[in-house]
Amino acid sequence: MRNRLTRRTFLATAGASFGAMHVSATGFPKELGAPPRPYGERSPFEHSVRFLPKSSTPASSHSRTPLQDLVGVITPSALHYEVHHSGVPEIDPRYHEVMIHGLVERPLIFTMEDLHRLPSISRIHFLECAGNSGGEQIGRPAINPQRSHGLLSCSEWTGVPLRTLLEQVGLKPGATWIVAEGADAGRMARSIPLEKAVDDVLVAYGQNGEALRPEQGYPVRLIVPGWEGNTNIKWLRRVQVVDQPYMTAYETGHYTDLMPDGTARQFTFVMEAKSVITHPAGDQQLSGTGFYEITGLAWSGRGRIAKIEVSTDGGRRWQDAQLNEPILPKALTRFRLPWWWDGKETSLQSRCTDETGYLQPTREELVAVRGLNATDHYNGIKVWYVHADGSVSRE
Amino acid sequence: MRNRLTRRTFLATAGASFGAMHVSATGFPKELGAPPRPYGERSPFEHSVRFLPKSSTPASSHSRTPLQDLVGVITPSALHYEVHHSGVPEIDPRYHEVMIHGLVERPLIFTMEDLHRLPSISRIHFLECAGNSGGEQIGRPAINPQRSHGLLSCSEWTGVPLRTLLEQVGLKPGATWIVAEGADAGRMARSIPLEKAVDDVLVAYGQNGEALRPEQGYPVRLIVPGWEGNTNIKWLRRVQVVDQPYMTAYETGHYTDLMPDGTARQFTFVMEAKSVITHPAGDQQLSGTGFYEITGLAWSGRGRIAKIEVSTDGGRRWQDAQLNEPILPKALTRFRLPWWWDGKETSLQSRCTDETGYLQPTREELVAVRGLNATDHYNGIKVWYVHADGSVSRE
Repeated sequence: MRNRLTRRTFLATAGASFGAMHVSATGFPKELGAPPRPYGERSPFEHSVRFLPKSSTPASSHSRTPLQDLVGVITPSALHYEVHHSGVPEIDPRYHEVMIHGLVERPLIFTMEDLHRLPSISRIHFLECAGNSGGEQIGRPAINPQRSHGLLSCSEWTGVPLRTLLEQVGLKPGATWIVAEGADAGRMARSIPLEKAVDDVLVAYGQNGEALRPEQGYPVRLIVPGWEGNTNIKWLRRVQVVDQPYMTAYETGHYTDLMPDGTARQFTFVMEAKSVITHPAGDQQLSGTGFYEITGLAWSGRGRIAKIEVSTDGGRRWQDAQLNEPILPKALTRFRLPWWWDGKETSLQSRCTDETGYLQPTREELVAVRGLNATDHYNGIKVWYVHADGSVSRE
Repeated sequence: MRNRLTRRTFLATAGASFGAMHVSATGFPKELGAPPRPYGERSPFEHSVRFLPKSSTPASSHSRTPLQDLVGVITPSALHYEVHHSGVPEIDPRYHEVMIHGLVERPLIFTMEDLHRLPSISRIHFLECAGNSGGEQIGRPAINPQRSHGLLSCSEWTGVPLRTLLEQVGLKPGATWIVAEGADAGRMARSIPLEKAVDDVLVAYGQNGEALRPEQGYPVRLIVPGWEGNTNIKWLRRVQVVDQPYMTAYETGHYTDLMPDGTARQFTFVMEAKSVITHPAGDQQLSGTGFYEITGLAWSGRGRIAKIEVSTDGGRRWQDAQLNEPILPKALTRFRLPWWWDGKETSLQSRCTDETGYLQPTREELVAVRGLNATDHYNGIKVWYVHADGSVSRE
């Protein structure tokens, strides 16, 4: 039998209350360990993976980040969510090119070597699929944070500001939009207003220090900070400067929001302020009364998170959570709140306010306006239910 | 033959000057790509690896981060440098414990489950081996940034403040130092002043969003922000609170700096302000006159980097480089400067100033004080030499 702490009674504010000391002769290695490796791997004891749905069309599918297993705000590249409509192409960067053309003075083609030579910047930004947590809107709450909110990740992206490339080609009068197109077989394409294109969009080749991962657009993609994932065109091959949105399949047939009156919201680019508790959360088990740290993530496509509040009593009282610094614009922000569970049934929920003053709505407030026809851009408050036996579930 | 830009004449300040447009029908996938994967891998076209020295004792060795291949400031965990004196132990986290004892009121043992339940924080910090770039001091400059400065990496670390654990056990009168010990076969141990231990030291289990990698101390290690790497005890098993430094093997036989007068500097904890240009740098080849972005990294164990200057003319004139934001304390800071190479022989070097006002010294200034007996804590300015044929080298 191993000697462990058996009472779990830590109280952040009340000083020491762990159980009696059990000095154990912990077994630890007495022989030399492994030598260095050229490219590391995680411990064989770690098993967290992306969730892959059953799909009859695996090349038009997605994977979800295991938010409940992660810490901090950086998503390991191996666990970054992915959505693709025609699979992940294998692209040799030596032969990949990005063409900038259309309403420009000097259309140009950039090789990857060209892009690497241009002035670059690095920024930490979240990416979120427009459809993330869409099931919540239509009354089908998911069982855990990965299933409910896992089309969400955050990385340090490095690349060339798209503005720099557009300055190179020179814009002609009438240029008001761009159409960006990927090199996947389906030629995923989206229209983006020029105002955003010259603001903070990156032609990115780096992710968390190294090259983009294949699922995230290797060798080059758009990063459109704060905007719905599908505008962040992966495997970027072409940017056409145009005078109007081009009504591509992915902004007409897909990624529009059908409203209660039968009309559809279109070009709903910005991902509004949203948050989710990742622990304690659905599919988790509390091991008894006592101290727990409530933690989760908040983000806003409009800038920085200003405040995160947590309720542990069904929404009657809200307490300010502690925000982990630095708080970066259009990036995930980790929040934490100490919580003493008294063993009774209750619920846990978080709501955030961004620097524009926008407050994350309840599901009821959102459904009252948007109805139940659409599942994109849902950002309602997520509630997890704690039961007397310590189990936490979606309802 | 492929259509590519043949002139590489981008000028950041002078507008467009790329070559004529060559519209090519870039080949790209016409068939569906790969389906999602549970845990991603990098592209098969990416080959950057850690440098492993030839060693007759591979379980007491190191690996160096390929700084010249990386972008941004986050080091991919798979490429984080490692130094170990008795190999990388394989530890099952279910049976791992951290004991806090010594001059304390209530000695305690924490399981990994206990640690995960305690209040945690996440911080981006660099780690640097005391011996990083030591060859430079003794007049043996290395051939490229990986070989000269690659015992340097930066991650988002997550864990419990050591202060929290020390509050749990309660300190007895006379407590002024701690001794931290690893669970590797060699029981790597270092003495750390209590003042630092309760300041910003983390008992860390997370690295870049997921669990620590084995080479970085899985399942738990100390992070001692800004202090020499070897104090950041990996595979942490024990923290003993004591009344004096314990003169372990790694602070007497190793990791002391022999001075010209025969005495040795000891407990030289802080890694002073330092910088290195990673591109263009040794072992790289410029492809002709024209625009290049000079980029590199700067860091200080005392806080934030305040200024980085670059000289492209042998140190006569220094220009302020642009610093990538956010500039975080005790973290890597990426800098950039546009540079037009006129085809003539020259040299490139960077020097940084941290928020305390400390200016990175030249090698000459440092050697005048420290001499040539020691190779730890060298932080002199690194110079790369550009030759007329475009090659860049260490001399």
